[in-house]
Amino acid sequence: MAEGGHLLLDRRDGVLVITLNRPERLNAVSAAVSEEMVDVLNGLMRDPRTHVVVLTGAGRGFCSGMDIRDDGPGTAEPDAEGRAQRLYRGIAGGGEVTARLREIPQPVIAALHGPVAGMGVSWALACDLRVADPTTRFVLPFTDLGLSGGDCGLSWLLPRLVGPAKAADLLYRARRLRAEEARELGLITEMAEEGGDLAAALALAGELLRRSPYGLRRTKELLNASLDAPGLRQQLVAETGIQTLAFFTEDLAEGMTATLAGRPPEFRNR
Amino acid sequence: MAEGGHLLLDRRDGVLVITLNRPERLNAVSAAVSEEMVDVLNGLMRDPRTHVVVLTGAGRGFCSGMDIRDDGPGTAEPDAEGRAQRLYRGIAGGGEVTARLREIPQPVIAALHGPVAGMGVSWALACDLRVADPTTRFVLPFTDLGLSGGDCGLSWLLPRLVGPAKAADLLYRARRLRAEEARELGLITEMAEEGGDLAAALALAGELLRRSPYGLRRTKELLNASLDAPGLRQQLVAETGIQTLAFFTEDLAEGMTATLAGRPPEFRNR
Amino acid sequence: MAEGGHLLLDRRDGVLVITLNRPERLNAVSAAVSEEMVDVLNGLMRDPRTHVVVLTGAGRGFCSGMDIRDDGPGTAEPDAEGRAQRLYRGIAGGGEVTARLREIPQPVIAALHGPVAGMGVSWALACDLRVADPTTRFVLPFTDLGLSGGDCGLSWLLPRLVGPAKAADLLYRARRLRAEEARELGLITEMAEEGGDLAAALALAGELLRRSPYGLRRTKELLNASLDAPGLRQQLVAETGIQTLAFFTEDLAEGMTATLAGRPPEFRNR
Repeated sequence: MAEGGHLLLDRRDGVLVITLNRPERLNAVSAAVSEEMVDVLNGLMRDPRTHVVVLTGAGRGFCSGMDIRDDGPGTAEPDAEGRAQRLYRGIAGGGEVTARLREIPQPVIAALHGPVAGMGVSWALACDLRVADPTTRFVLPFTDLGLSGGDCGLSWLLPRLVGPAKAADLLYRARRLRAEEARELGLITEMAEEGGDLAAALALAGELLRRSPYGLRRTKELLNASLDAPGLRQQLVAETGIQTLAFFTEDLAEGMTATLAGRPPEFRNR
Repeated sequence: MAEGGHLLLDRRDGVLVITLNRPERLNAVSAAVSEEMVDVLNGLMRDPRTHVVVLTGAGRGFCSGMDIRDDGPGTAEPDAEGRAQRLYRGIAGGGEVTARLREIPQPVIAALHGPVAGMGVSWALACDLRVADPTTRFVLPFTDLGLSGGDCGLSWLLPRLVGPAKAADLLYRARRLRAEEARELGLITEMAEEGGDLAAALALAGELLRRSPYGLRRTKELLNASLDAPGLRQQLVAETGIQTLAFFTEDLAEGMTATLAGRPPEFRNR
Repeated sequence: MAEGGHLLLDRRDGVLVITLNRPERLNAVSAAVSEEMVDVLNGLMRDPRTHVVVLTGAGRGFCSGMDIRDDGPGTAEPDAEGRAQRLYRGIAGGGEVTARLREIPQPVIAALHGPVAGMGVSWALACDLRVADPTTRFVLPFTDLGLSGGDCGLSWLLPRLVGPAKAADLLYRARRLRAEEARELGLITEMAEEGGDLAAALALAGELLRRSPYGLRRTKELLNASLDAPGLRQQLVAETGIQTLAFFTEDLAEGMTATLAGRPPEFRNR
C-alpha cells in the first residue's frame, strides 16, 4: 500500500480513515498525492476486512484542489511537450481517484470542513455520503481561472447530484457554496458541529459497520452500475444474480433470524 | 388473464384496479403472485379499453415484500441447486413485474397505505404516480437482512427518483421513510387522508381518463424511453414520429376544437 | 445568418440577444421560425466573439408553442402525404432548435415572461439558465389536445430537470406551472420583477462575460456530454484532455495571476 508521507492511514476495526496530510498546503493535490490515493484505493479492492472508508483532510480544510505551484503563470518551459504530458498525468490522476472512490466496494464517507475546492470537490462528491461541519465551503473557481468545470469527474457527478440546471448555474458562475446551501441542495448527508465532522463520520461508519458487508458492498456496486447502465432490464439481470447469491451467505440467516427475534444482527461477512 | 386468487381485478370503465390480495400475509409476494401480476400486465399491453391502472393492497398494508417463508433461515435443503434456481426465479419474477409496470402503455397509480416493504417498494416506485395515506411507510431493510439494496429494480429506480446521494443514504442505512418524508423526497404525487388512498387514486385516475389516451400512452412510453436512451438526438427521432402521428388521430381534432371552444374534450381513443 | 423577419438579433459586445418576434401570434413557432433559429444557432457554432446568448420573446409572452393554424381541425387536405411530411418537418424543426440550443458552445439564458407553452417549454428548458418574471407560466397542454408530452425534446429534458415522477405528473395531467412553482422545482435560475426578465438576463449575461470563454464553453459542452455519456470513465477521458489544454491558453495565466492578486481577471479568449 502507500508508502509516502502525504496520507495518514488509520485502521480501526472495519474502518479505514484516510487523511490528506499536507495541511501547510491546505491539502493541495500533487501528482504524488493522487498516486498514493490510487495505491490505497487499489488495495481496498481486495480487502475483505475493511467495510467502510472515511476520507478527510488534516488542518483547517479538506482540500484546496490541484497543486499547480509548478504549473501556474510564469512557468513557460522550453519543453512544452513535457509540460503537457505532466499536466495531463496530474489531471488524469485526480480523475482516477474519483473513479476508484466509486469503484471500491466499501462505502466511503467524506468528513468535510473548511475549503473543499477544485479537485477536492470531485473527490468529496465521489464519496457515497458526506458529513460536513459549518465551516465547510465548496469552491468551484474554474471559470474564473480560465479552466473548465469539467474536472476530475465533476461534470459527471454534479448534474447527477443537483440536476443539470443547478450544475450549470454553479459551474458557469464559479460559485461558492456554504455548508447550509450545500445541504439544501442534497450534497450533505449529515451536518456536524464545528470541528466535529470526523467524529460524526466515524459514528456514521460505526452505524454502517453493523449492517451486512455483502449488502453494503453489492448495494454500492449496483447504485454505481445503475448510473452507467443502458437500461432497467440490464440492471435487473445484475440485481437478480446478486440478490440470489445473498441467500447462500451465512449472514443472511443471521440477519433474518435477528430481525425476526427483534435483536441486532451480528454479521461476519460470510 | 389471471386465474389465481392472489389478485383482485376490478374493471371500472377505463380503469383497472389490481389489488394484491393476501392480507393475512401483508400481501407478501410469492412466485405465484408475481406470475399472476405478469399475466395481468401482459394482457394490458394489448388492451385498448383500459386507459389507467391502479395498484393497491388489501388489508392494512400495501405489500410486505418477497415471501421468504420457504427460504429463510433453517431451510437448508439437500438440493442446493434447486434452491438457487427457485430463489432466482422468485427474485427475477419480482423484477419482471417492475419492468412490465413501466412497459405497459397505461399510466399506473399506486394507492399506498401501511407498510410498503422490500419488493413492494420496487413495485410502488415503478408506478408512474403514487397516492399515499398517512399510515404509509417505506421500509428498506436489505442491509439489515444480509441482502443487497439492488432488488427488483430498486437500484435503478431509487437514484433516478431521489438522486444518487439520497439513494445511498436510504439503502446503506436500511432506512424507514414515513409518508411525509417520502413526500418531501418527491416520491408521493398526492397525500390522501387515512384510509383514503384508494379513493384518491381513483379520483386521480378519473382525471386522467378525461385526457387523450394516445397522449397518455405515448407520453409514458417516451418518458421511460428517455431514461434508457443514449442521447437527446435519439429521443428526438422517437418523439417526432410519435407527435406527427397524433395529428392523424380523430382525438386531436376533438382536443383542439374543445380547447378553442373552452369546453372539456371527449376523447374516444381514435 | 438569418434574413427573415421572425427574429430580432441584437449584438451587444459578447452577448447576442435573440427575440422571437411574432407578438401578434404570441410568438407561435412556424416552420419558418424554426428554420431561422437553426440558421442563427448554426452561425454561433463558429462565432468566436459571441460568448453568451439570451433568448426571449417580444410582446406579452415568451412563446405560445407550435403554430398549428394550418394543421388544426378542419384542415383535411386531399394530399394526406403532403400533410404528414409538412407536420413531420415542423415538429422535427422545433426539435432541431432544442438540440442546437444545447450544442452551441455559448451558454444560453432564457428571459421568460407570460405564456411559455408547448414547443416554447422545450426551447426554454434547452437553455442553460432561465430568468423569469412573475407573469411567467409554463403550459403543458399536450394530453388535453390529443398530443404526446414527447415534444421537441421535452420528454428528454423534463425528467432530467425535475425527476421522472414529477415529469409524469406534469405531463399526464396537462399541468400549468406558475413562475413560483417552476422556481420551487428548480426550473428557474433567478426571478426578476415584473417586466424585468430581459434586464435581469442581460445582467446575468454580463456576469458570465467576465468569466473565461474557454471555461464557459468547455463546461457547457461537458455538462451536456455528461448526460449522454455511457459512464464516468468515458467522461473522464473527455474532461482530462480539455482541462489540460486550458493550461496552454493565455487566459489561464491571466485568471491565475488575477486570482492570486485579488483583482478581477480580464479574459481575451486566447
